[in-house]
Parts: sequence; structure tokens; C-alpha cells
Amino acid sequence: MKTHTDYLFITTKQQKEIINITSEVEAVVNKSGVKEGMVLVSAMHITASVFINDEEPGLKEDFLKWLEELAPVNPSYKHHQTGEDNADAHLKRTIMGREVVVAITKSQLDFGPWEQIFYGEFDGQRKKRIVVKVMGE
Amino acid sequence: MKTHTDYLFITTKQQKEIINITSEVEAVVNKSGVKEGMVLVSAMHITASVFINDEEPGLKEDFLKWLEELAPVNPSYKHHQTGEDNADAHLKRTIMGREVVVAITKSQLDFGPWEQIFYGEFDGQRKKRIVVKVMGE
Amino acid sequence: MKTHTDYLFITTKQQKEIINITSEVEAVVNKSGVKEGMVLVSAMHITASVFINDEEPGLKEDFLKWLEELAPVNPSYKHHQTGEDNADAHLKRTIMGREVVVAITKSQLDFGPWEQIFYGEFDGQRKKRIVVKVMGE
Repeated sequence: MKTHTDYLFITTKQQKEIINITSEVEAVVNKSGVKEGMVLVSAMHITASVFINDEEPGLKEDFLKWLEELAPVNPSYKHHQTGEDNADAHLKRTIMGREVVVAITKSQLDFGPWEQIFYGEFDGQRKKRIVVKVMGE
Repeated sequence: MKTHTDYLFITTKQQKEIINITSEVEAVVNKSGVKEGMVLVSAMHITASVFINDEEPGLKEDFLKWLEELAPVNPSYKHHQTGEDNADAHLKRTIMGREVVVAITKSQLDFGPWEQIFYGEFDGQRKKRIVVKVMGE
Repeated sequence: MKTHTDYLFITTKQQKEIINITSEVEAVVNKSGVKEGMVLVSAMHITASVFINDEEPGLKEDFLKWLEELAPVNPSYKHHQTGEDNADAHLKRTIMGREVVVAITKSQLDFGPWEQIFYGEFDGQRKKRIVVKVMGE
């Protein structure tokens, strides 16, 4: 049995931004030497997400607009009484999810035709970290 | 350490439909021979979900109605400028989740009394695929 | 390869409540002896969640208020025709998620600075169960 751990570092240009990290995750899986197993890809910050969807710029805009409707920026969150101003980002990340687990089969991410891995940042412009943990044989 | 990979194929009759796949997943786990470990069950298409909830027809209707409220069919999504018409399905799948990871204990899915695994299709009537990856010993 | 299985039992005082279970999960990981691997932490009931966010009381209130907006208590759910009255709890749990998978690195939960594990109960005041499954070496 093999395990392999790596970290990706991302500083987004925008406060809210969706970034394709598929090739970075593939590089970690290749480096691990695991042929059959699973890889966990997880945001290490609680206002950011890792999720799987489609690489299409219009859809990324749709996601950000929709998240703003479901979990709007709003000064009245209780969390803001601590001095924070990012409660909406905690809620947005919850909708999109913290992590994905992907099957590794024959040394590849075992993906359907359109699956791509994204980092979703909702309180960015700061250095953030993603953990990539590979386990298998 | 053992790994085992299998695929389920589903063509729904309806465009949006929720289908119980628990017994199919159990069959894959049995076939794998894994006694202690984990199984990943994941939609391989980005307008579909795998999730765990209750086998109750009324609740399935509630889920579909609720998803239509949170992520409605709407011609104004940016994604539709590509010629697609299924942006709502990408959003609905995001609410319901792409994948589940289930513990395997004593050769069984280690489930509470009501847990059942479902495939949620939001842009169906086409052949779709689910990956089932078992890992353990 | 090692696996280890444990269960946490929780009876919440409130019907809807968010409880920090990080130290209980850490105790199970320590007991497992796994140095490198993954831990699955999963609600075994379909009206409850396990999720990762921030230990901040105001944010917990924000989560519960926000869930009430997205998935309100409402007598008109179809699920209630069975005699149940908790359809909202099934929907709330879906937003928050059923399970988390956390990397274990050097015998520790491989967490960012603010990550904490929570049990989210949406139909409580009854004894509920969480499965903690550790796998690795």
C-alpha cells in the first residue's frame, strides 16, 4: 500500500473566483505511482471549495451569480459581530462542498467525459492551500 | 490490500429522476471480497448526483420540487450561450452532491437504519455512468 | 494496511443543533495507529450531517437561520403524508452534507488553521450515531 501527500497553493486575483486544478491533481497522482486507489482533494480553508463540474466560462459565471442569490453578501450575519465580514463565503463554500474523492484506475483519474476539478474561492486574494492525498497500490 | 472497480449504467425514463442503486452497490462490494474498507460511488456526469437519503416516494418528489425552487430551469443562464440548455442541472447536481464514500465493515455497507444510495439524474434520457471503487482488505 | 472502525453517539438537547466533534474524531484516529491515510466521518441518520467549518458561535447561528430560509419547516411536504413531519430536516442535511473524508498525515488530521469537524442535527433529541472509519498504514 502506498500513500502520497502534496499541497497546492493558490492566491486568487479576485475575491471570488473559480480555478481549474485538474492538471495539478493529475501531476500529484502521477508522482505518487498509485495505479489503483483513491485521491482526496480538499480545501484547507473554510471559505473555499473543491468541486467537480464542467470547464465552461459561462457556467462559472452562472455558479458565482447563483451562489450570490442563495448566500448573499449581507452585513447582518451574526458572524460579523466578531469583526469578520465573510459569513457569505462560509455559506457559499458549503453549497459547493469542501472536498472531492476521485477513483484512480490504471494510473488515471477515473473520470467521465466532462469532469474537471475546480478550486472555488469565496474570500480570496490571500495565499490558500489545498491538500491532495493519494492512497492505493 | 485489495481494490475493485465497477461501473453502473443508467438511462432514466424521465429527464429528472431519482433511482435507488443500493443493491447494485452492495453487489459490487460483495464481488470485491473487501471486508474492511471504503467504497466510493460517484456520478461520472456533471448533471447527475449520487447521494444518500431515505427510500420514500413522497420525499423524492419533495427533493425534485425543492431543487426546482433553488436552481430553476431558466433560459437566461450564461451557459446557454454555448448552445446548451441544462445549466439548471449543473446547479441541481451541486446541491445534491457528486459522490458518496461509505464505510465497509464486516463485508457490509456500514449503514444506519434508513440509509439508501440514490442516483439523481437532472438531464437524463441518455446513457450515463457511475463508478464504484472499492478499497480495503 | 490498517483499518479501524468506531462509532460516536449523540443525543442533542435541541431539535436543531451543531456540535463540534473534532476531539472525538482525533481520539479515534490516535487509537487506530494510522500514520498516513484517510478517515471517513459520516452521519448514519438521514436528517443529520457531518461537515467542516469554523468554531464560532455566531456562524453556527447563521448556518441554522440560513438553512431555515433555504429548506423551511413546512407542513405541505409530500413526505408528511406518511405521518412524518421532518422533510425539512432531510433537505437541510443535504445542503450541509452527509460525510467528510479527512487526510491523515504524520498521525494527525491534516487540517488548515481553522478546520473543525461538526455534527449537524436537524431532527434531534434522540440517540443518533456517527461512523468513523480509518484506513491507512
